[in-house]
Amino acid sequence: MIFLNNISFSDVRLLDGFWKQKHKLNSDTTIFSVYDRFKETGRFDAFNFDWVEGKPNKPHFFWDSDVAKWIEGAANILQKEKNPRLEEIVDDVVDKIAEHQDENGYFNIYFTVIEPGKRFSNRDCHELYCAGHLTEAAVAYYKATGKDKMLKCMCRYIDYIEKVFVKEKSAAFVTPGHEEIELALVRLYHCTGEKRYLELSKFFIDNRGQTEEKLGNDWTTQRYYQSDKPCREQFTAEGHSVRACYLYSGMADIAIEYDDKELQNACEQLFDDIYNHKLYITGGVGQSSYGEAFTIPYDLQNNRAYTETCAAIALVFFASRMQKLKLDSRFGDVIEKAIYNGILSGISLDGKSFFYENPLEIILSENNRNVFLDINKERHPITQRVEVFSCSCCPPNLNRFLSSIGDYIYGVENDTVFVHQYISSETKINDTEISMISGFPYDGKVKINVKNASTFAFRIPPYSRNNFEIILNGKKIIPTVKSGYAFVEVKGEADIIIDIDVSPKKIFANGLVDRDAGKCAIVAGPIVYCAEGKDNGNHLRQFRIPDKLEYSFIKNEEIGTTDLIVKAEKTANIKDLYSFEKTYTEDKLHLIPYFAFANRGECDMAVWLISV
Amino acid sequence: MIFLNNISFSDVRLLDGFWKQKHKLNSDTTIFSVYDRFKETGRFDAFNFDWVEGKPNKPHFFWDSDVAKWIEGAANILQKEKNPRLEEIVDDVVDKIAEHQDENGYFNIYFTVIEPGKRFSNRDCHELYCAGHLTEAAVAYYKATGKDKMLKCMCRYIDYIEKVFVKEKSAAFVTPGHEEIELALVRLYHCTGEKRYLELSKFFIDNRGQTEEKLGNDWTTQRYYQSDKPCREQFTAEGHSVRACYLYSGMADIAIEYDDKELQNACEQLFDDIYNHKLYITGGVGQSSYGEAFTIPYDLQNNRAYTETCAAIALVFFASRMQKLKLDSRFGDVIEKAIYNGILSGISLDGKSFFYENPLEIILSENNRNVFLDINKERHPITQRVEVFSCSCCPPNLNRFLSSIGDYIYGVENDTVFVHQYISSETKINDTEISMISGFPYDGKVKINVKNASTFAFRIPPYSRNNFEIILNGKKIIPTVKSGYAFVEVKGEADIIIDIDVSPKKIFANGLVDRDAGKCAIVAGPIVYCAEGKDNGNHLRQFRIPDKLEYSFIKNEEIGTTDLIVKAEKTANIKDLYSFEKTYTEDKLHLIPYFAFANRGECDMAVWLISV
Repeated sequence: MIFLNNISFSDVRLLDGFWKQKHKLNSDTTIFSVYDRFKETGRFDAFNFDWVEGKPNKPHFFWDSDVAKWIEGAANILQKEKNPRLEEIVDDVVDKIAEHQDENGYFNIYFTVIEPGKRFSNRDCHELYCAGHLTEAAVAYYKATGKDKMLKCMCRYIDYIEKVFVKEKSAAFVTPGHEEIELALVRLYHCTGEKRYLELSKFFIDNRGQTEEKLGNDWTTQRYYQSDKPCREQFTAEGHSVRACYLYSGMADIAIEYDDKELQNACEQLFDDIYNHKLYITGGVGQSSYGEAFTIPYDLQNNRAYTETCAAIALVFFASRMQKLKLDSRFGDVIEKAIYNGILSGISLDGKSFFYENPLEIILSENNRNVFLDINKERHPITQRVEVFSCSCCPPNLNRFLSSIGDYIYGVENDTVFVHQYISSETKINDTEISMISGFPYDGKVKINVKNASTFAFRIPPYSRNNFEIILNGKKIIPTVKSGYAFVEVKGEADIIIDIDVSPKKIFANGLVDRDAGKCAIVAGPIVYCAEGKDNGNHLRQFRIPDKLEYSFIKNEEIGTTDLIVKAEKTANIKDLYSFEKTYTEDKLHLIPYFAFANRGECDMAVWLISV
Repeated sequence: MIFLNNISFSDVRLLDGFWKQKHKLNSDTTIFSVYDRFKETGRFDAFNFDWVEGKPNKPHFFWDSDVAKWIEGAANILQKEKNPRLEEIVDDVVDKIAEHQDENGYFNIYFTVIEPGKRFSNRDCHELYCAGHLTEAAVAYYKATGKDKMLKCMCRYIDYIEKVFVKEKSAAFVTPGHEEIELALVRLYHCTGEKRYLELSKFFIDNRGQTEEKLGNDWTTQRYYQSDKPCREQFTAEGHSVRACYLYSGMADIAIEYDDKELQNACEQLFDDIYNHKLYITGGVGQSSYGEAFTIPYDLQNNRAYTETCAAIALVFFASRMQKLKLDSRFGDVIEKAIYNGILSGISLDGKSFFYENPLEIILSENNRNVFLDINKERHPITQRVEVFSCSCCPPNLNRFLSSIGDYIYGVENDTVFVHQYISSETKINDTEISMISGFPYDGKVKINVKNASTFAFRIPPYSRNNFEIILNGKKIIPTVKSGYAFVEVKGEADIIIDIDVSPKKIFANGLVDRDAGKCAIVAGPIVYCAEGKDNGNHLRQFRIPDKLEYSFIKNEEIGTTDLIVKAEKTANIKDLYSFEKTYTEDKLHLIPYFAFANRGECDMAVWLISV
C-alpha cells in the first residue's frame, strides 16, 4: 500500500540554482551531444532497418535501449519547454518504429535485421530490456507532447510480449536476463490504466527465480541475474548492479500496487543490505568490474570501484520507490548522495563526456605500472570521460535522469507535504503552493514560501541531524522529528527557513571496510570532496588530515565549484625507501567536489584521505 | 677488480642455530619432497628421453632447469655430508644426460624429444637458461663429490653453444631471453680455469641489447627481456625480475673479472634503483604478476605483490656479487632482509610446500568477492603453499639456496675478515680460525671466538646503526665505522661479543609509496613481523598501532617462532557503514614472523598495519 505519493517532475518547475543549471546543460548541450554521437555510431540509423553485412555500424542488440533512453530524455525536456528540433528527431524515430514494427507487434532492430530467427531465444539478449526502455520512452513522449503513436506501438509490442510469455509460453526463457520491463510496465499501467500491464509486470516478478533458467553466458550464474531465488526471498543485493536495482524498483512498484508485504519486506531488506554494506560514500553501487556487480559486504575498494553511473541512477529509482512505501529518511539520504556525487560524476562539467565507471581513487602511476608490456593487462577504470562508449548506456540515462530531477523533491501523504531534496523549485500540491529557494549544495539555507499550507515534513540529512534550525514566519520552532523528517504544522501563507548544517566534516567508514581504514573522507553537506593531483601534486597519500578539521572555502573559477582548503600534514620528503622515523610538515590540501573530478586533465584523485 | 673475496659455504660449517635447522630441514625433508613431486610429475623421467605423444607428463622446455637446480641442491648437501640416496639419484640423472647428449654436445630434453627441429630458434624457450642451470649443477656436483662426468658433459655443451653463438652465429638470436648462463659460465670458468667460458659469458653481456632481437612472445617488449639497451647503459631494474637479477649478477661477475668500470657503474645504479625504489621490506622484488616483473618506483602494492621466491634469491645472488665489488653494508642488509623474510616465506615450516608469490597482505574476503561468477576472473596470489607448481622453479631454487646459506656469512680482503651475516658457524680464513655463535634472528647477541686474528669488519645492520656494542676480550671498544661496517683490530686469540639491537621497532615507507601510507611495519632485528587473522581475527585493518610501540615477546610453540604482542587500538564496532565519529578501544595485536605466515590455514595477513 502506498504510504506517500511522489510529485512528478512534470508538476515541478525548477527555479534558478544548482540543478536548474544542470537541467539547462542537459537540454542545451548534453541531449544534442549524445544524439550526435549516437547518430555517428549508427544507433539512430539502425531504425531504418537497412543494415546489411559489410556496412559499418552493425546494430547491437541493446541499441534500441540507448535510443529509447535518449527519447525519454528528449521527452522530459519537451515536457518543460518547446524544442522543435528535439521533437522532430523523436517523431522521425517514432515513424520508423511504426513502419518497421512487425505485424504481430514485435519490435527489435537486432532480432529483425540480423537474427530474426533467434527472437526470445536467449534471456541475456536484452529484448525485454529494450522493450522496457522503449515503453518508458513512449510514456514520457506521450505525456510531454500528447502524441500517442509510439505509445500505441509499444502497447502492441507489450500485448505481443504478454502473448508469448504468459499465454503461449513460447519463449526460451521465463523472465528477462536484464530487468527493466517490470518497472516500465507499471509506468505503462499508470499511463494507460490498463491493469493487464501491471499484471504482466507482476508475472515477471512472481516467476523470477522459480525455475532454473538457461544461463546467457558461461561465466555467469543465476545469482548474477538475480534468478537464484524467488524475488520474495531475495534479501541481499546480488549480481549485476544495474539489473538488480531495476528489479528492486519493479519489486517495490508491485509491492505498492498489490500491497504485497512479502515483496515489501524483501525490498526493505535489500535496501538495508545496500545501505549498510555495499554503498560507496558517493552513492555508487556495484563494486566489481567483473560482472559489473555487487560483491560482498564491506568490500569497497576505491581505485577499482566499478560504481557504474547507471547503477547509481538505478539505485535512485529504487530508493524513490521505497520512499513511497515507508517513512524513512534514509531513502532520501541515498538519493541525495547519488545525485550530488556518484551520478553527477558521470558527466563532464561541459556536459559532453561521460564516465561509465566512477572510481573513488586514481593512482595514475599504478595504472601505468606495467611499463614493459605491450598490452597493459591490468584492468583499471578510465581516468578521463569520453563522449561515447561501445556500450553507451550511461549517457542517455543521464539525459533522462537530469531532465527529471524534479521527481525527487516533493511527496505528499494526505495533508502532509514532504520535502525530500532541497532543490530550488516551485510546485502546487493539492491547494498548497510552494516556492523553495535553496542554497544547496554549498549553502544550507533553504527558504520556502507557501500558500494554503498544511503540515510539512522536511528531510533532515544525517550531517545536520543534530544541528539544524527551522524558522517559521520569523520564529524558531522545535519540530517533531520522526524517521529523519522534521514535521512542522504550517497554516495559511507562511515563510519557512530551514537551516541545514553543511559545514565540512570528516567522515569515517566502518572498521570492516579494509580499504578505508586509517582514512577519512571530507564531506560538506551533500557534497563529497576529493583531492586531485592537479591541485596538490600526485601521490596524494603523502598528505594526512589532522584530528581536528580546519578549513576555508575558495571559489574555483575554472570549474565553477566551491572548493575547500583544509589543513593537512605532508610526509617530509625522505630519501630512504624505509626509515624508522616518520616526520610531517604542515601543509594544505585543496579539495574539489567529487562530481567535478577529472575535468582538468589526467591526474591522481582520492576521496579517502589518510587521517590521524 | 675484486674488492672482497667471498668465503664459500664449502669452507664454512654451520653451528647449531636458526640456519642449521633450516639447512637440516632442507637436507632431511625438502630435497626429498621436491624429488618426489618432480618424480611424480615426470621431470626426472623426462631424462629417459622416451616421451611420446599420448603419454602423460609431456616435458616442458624448462624442465631441465628444475632438475638441474635440484641437483645443485643435492650437491650442496653432499658437499657437507654423505647421503648415498641423493648421490644415487644424481648419478642416475648424470648417466642419462651422458647417454642422451647429442654427438655435437647439445643437450635439452624438449628440443630433442619434442621439437628437435627448433633448437635455438626462439630466445624465450629457455635453452641457454637450462644450460646455465645444468652447468651450475655440474660444477656443484664436481666440487661436492669429485665426480666430473656431468661437468664434462656440460663443458661439451658449452663448447657447442660457443660454436653456435660466437663462431657460427647460427642461432636465431644473439642473447638468451632468460638470463642465467652468464653467471653459470663464470662459475664454470672458476671451476675449470678455462678462460673461454669467461669470455663466452662476456660475449652474452656485451651483445645484449645491441640488436633488435625477435620477441619471444607477443605481449612482451625488449624491456621485459632487459634487451632494450646495452648492459652498460642499463641503470634501472626492468622487466622480468628473476631474469633481471640473474643478468645483473652476471654483469657484476664480468665487472669483477675484467675490472670493467662501466659495467660496475651500471650494476651500482641498478642496485640503487632496486634499493631505493623497488624493494619490498621483506626483500622481495618484482612487483607485478604481469610479466613477473619490476614495475615503476614506489609501486609497492601489498595484496598483489608478486615478489617471486626465485626473484628474492636472484637478488641475493646480485647483492652478494656487489659485496665483492664495493664496501657498502647495503648489500649485506638486502641479503639479510631477503633470507629472513621474502625467501624463507617461500617454504612452509614443515619444509614441504612452497609459495611462488609472496604477498605482503591477504584479505580473503576480497580474494573471494566475486561470489556470483562461476570463474573468479580476478588474479590474486594463492594463500596457502603447495608442494609443486606447473612452473616449479622456486622449490629447487630453495633446495640449492638453503643448502648454500653459508655463502653469505664471511668475506676477506687482504688481512681483513668481513662478517656479513650473523649466522652461527665456524670457518678458517687464511690462518684465522673463527667460531661464531649468534642468537639471530631473535637475540642480537653474537659471540665470536677467533684464533690468529687479524682485522675484523662487522656489518652493523640499519636497525642497530645507532645502538650496538662491541666487546673485545671483555672490554667495550669504539670501532671505526665505514660504509656500515665496524672495523675492529684483533690480535691473536680473542673473544668478541657484538651486541646488535634487535628490539622491535616501527618502520615507515617513503611518502611516495601510496600503498603503505598511514601505515607502519613492525620489525625486530632482521625479522619483519606480520599479523594473521588466525591470531587476531580477519579484517586486520580494524587495528591501529599507537605512536609509541609497546610490546612483549611470546614463544609460539605451535610454529616454533618468537612472536610479538603489541599494544593496539581497535576500531569500535559501529553498526553504521559511515559515521562522523571514529572511536577506538584498547586492544592487542599478536604478530608472527612474516616467514611463518600461512602455516596454520587460510586467513587474512598484513605486514603493513594502520599506524597513528
